[in-house]
Amino acid sequence: MQDCRFKCVSIIGVGLLGASLGLALKQRALAGRVVGVGRAGSDSLSIALRRQAIDIAQTDPAQAVREASLVVLATSLGQFPAIFERISEALPTGALVTDVGSTKTQVMHWAAQELPDHVDFIGSHPMAGSEKRGPQFARPDLFENAVCLVCPPPIQARGPRTEQRVESATNRVEALWRAVGMNTRRLDARRHDQWVASVSHLPHAVATALVLAASETPQALSAIAGGFLDTTRIASADPVIWADIFLTNKPAVMNQLTVFIRRLRTLQTAIRRGDQAVIADLLQQAKTTRDTLANNRNPS
Amino acid sequence: MQDCRFKCVSIIGVGLLGASLGLALKQRALAGRVVGVGRAGSDSLSIALRRQAIDIAQTDPAQAVREASLVVLATSLGQFPAIFERISEALPTGALVTDVGSTKTQVMHWAAQELPDHVDFIGSHPMAGSEKRGPQFARPDLFENAVCLVCPPPIQARGPRTEQRVESATNRVEALWRAVGMNTRRLDARRHDQWVASVSHLPHAVATALVLAASETPQALSAIAGGFLDTTRIASADPVIWADIFLTNKPAVMNQLTVFIRRLRTLQTAIRRGDQAVIADLLQQAKTTRDTLANNRNPS
Repeated sequence: MQDCRFKCVSIIGVGLLGASLGLALKQRALAGRVVGVGRAGSDSLSIALRRQAIDIAQTDPAQAVREASLVVLATSLGQFPAIFERISEALPTGALVTDVGSTKTQVMHWAAQELPDHVDFIGSHPMAGSEKRGPQFARPDLFENAVCLVCPPPIQARGPRTEQRVESATNRVEALWRAVGMNTRRLDARRHDQWVASVSHLPHAVATALVLAASETPQALSAIAGGFLDTTRIASADPVIWADIFLTNKPAVMNQLTVFIRRLRTLQTAIRRGDQAVIADLLQQAKTTRDTLANNRNPS
Repeated sequence: MQDCRFKCVSIIGVGLLGASLGLALKQRALAGRVVGVGRAGSDSLSIALRRQAIDIAQTDPAQAVREASLVVLATSLGQFPAIFERISEALPTGALVTDVGSTKTQVMHWAAQELPDHVDFIGSHPMAGSEKRGPQFARPDLFENAVCLVCPPPIQARGPRTEQRVESATNRVEALWRAVGMNTRRLDARRHDQWVASVSHLPHAVATALVLAASETPQALSAIAGGFLDTTRIASADPVIWADIFLTNKPAVMNQLTVFIRRLRTLQTAIRRGDQAVIADLLQQAKTTRDTLANNRNPS
């Protein structure tokens, strides 16, 4: 077993994910102390303190990481470049840096550009959360039984770091997420971004367009049922976080949108032609796949 | 208050909706006896009988309606023409006929063509149910607090029926659904079909295409999270029922697919251009609408 106790953990961004990680680390005694970083004047820091998700509140990321053995970026992706730049000079030798961002290629690139050789950056994407935001919704069990995708840096971004050193850092990050209850899966950043474009970013774009399309028939909204609300639930998530996600995963998202529209056109053509057999076959294919996914996830 | 007790009710099709209606009517003592019609050799009739959703099991629709004061078609839409034809000769004078189908223009047309002048057909669309099917999932409270859309026949389909007679029949059908706990809303069939195309049929087509698109990256399916399963839940519904729905609401579904693809293209263009402000604005519009809908439905 990897040692996953950290003397001082800095969590930059104390929203739902950051504060939940603080709660989970403290509940399991995995961190000596937890420093939380938030904006001056926002409520998040005081809520996170009051809920004991963090021990110390900081508004300056550089100050917050000076003694950190582990640093976790948990803001929206758009803030990452400025944070990397800000903490770069302050990070102590041997610090392990990771994140909870939903895209990885761009993040690995930023980290390789900005962070010094005496620290290790390993990308993380804990696939947990909800459409709710803020430390008031944080839960120490948020990560339990969910999947965390972990991305070591690609060869060309490693600088002087040996394979052994990268392997060791990756193992420590995996141990961290497993310690808070997650199932980890290691893969390279490019593949990560393709996967989440398919199962997360595309559904988000589609749910958004569904609500916008339905808004064009406002009277019809009085007839919505549970199906519509389920299908569009993720459209209630934070617009700024998601704008950043789309922008940092542009090629894979564009590709998935193309695949999706092609599939929708196939169904549309079958409906226009009145081809009952083709329509039923497409619906059956989707049902079989979706039933399998739901059963695998919730074994009864 | 309208009188909503019926001496003999025939429910043709004892799946989830038909059997739930039987349970709801019997629990509230709204029906003298309930005759259920199903296919010879299928399990549905015996399950519906055992669960006491029906009192009498029949395989011949004509026999089942001979003494009916209320007839409810609860099969898939594709079976409606044959059922209308079969029961036409057997319906007693004054019988009230309705259905639970998800589209209405085509159904009103079939009813006007096939049913005799001495009965009244009023279209119903109880917006209740789930992706589960069969009388084993039936519940007497399935309809409670859900919306039922009720469609009187258009002027040209009324034959010798007076406005007063149509009004009275419509009132009786509305009273039926209110008696099992629903909120009714009266509207014409064409508008009904536009509304449900927007809030129900389009989301179904989209959820189906989402699963099919994700299936093209099979490895990515190991990374699915709750968001994907919510967004695609309705893709687990019955393919035959839904093929019929798409085919009997072709013009409105085609139109909604066009509106949807246009909205998705707008988002796609903003992502391609890297236009953060436009992306965030589209996401915010969708979030505002969707939050309002969710709050209206689940007032806290």
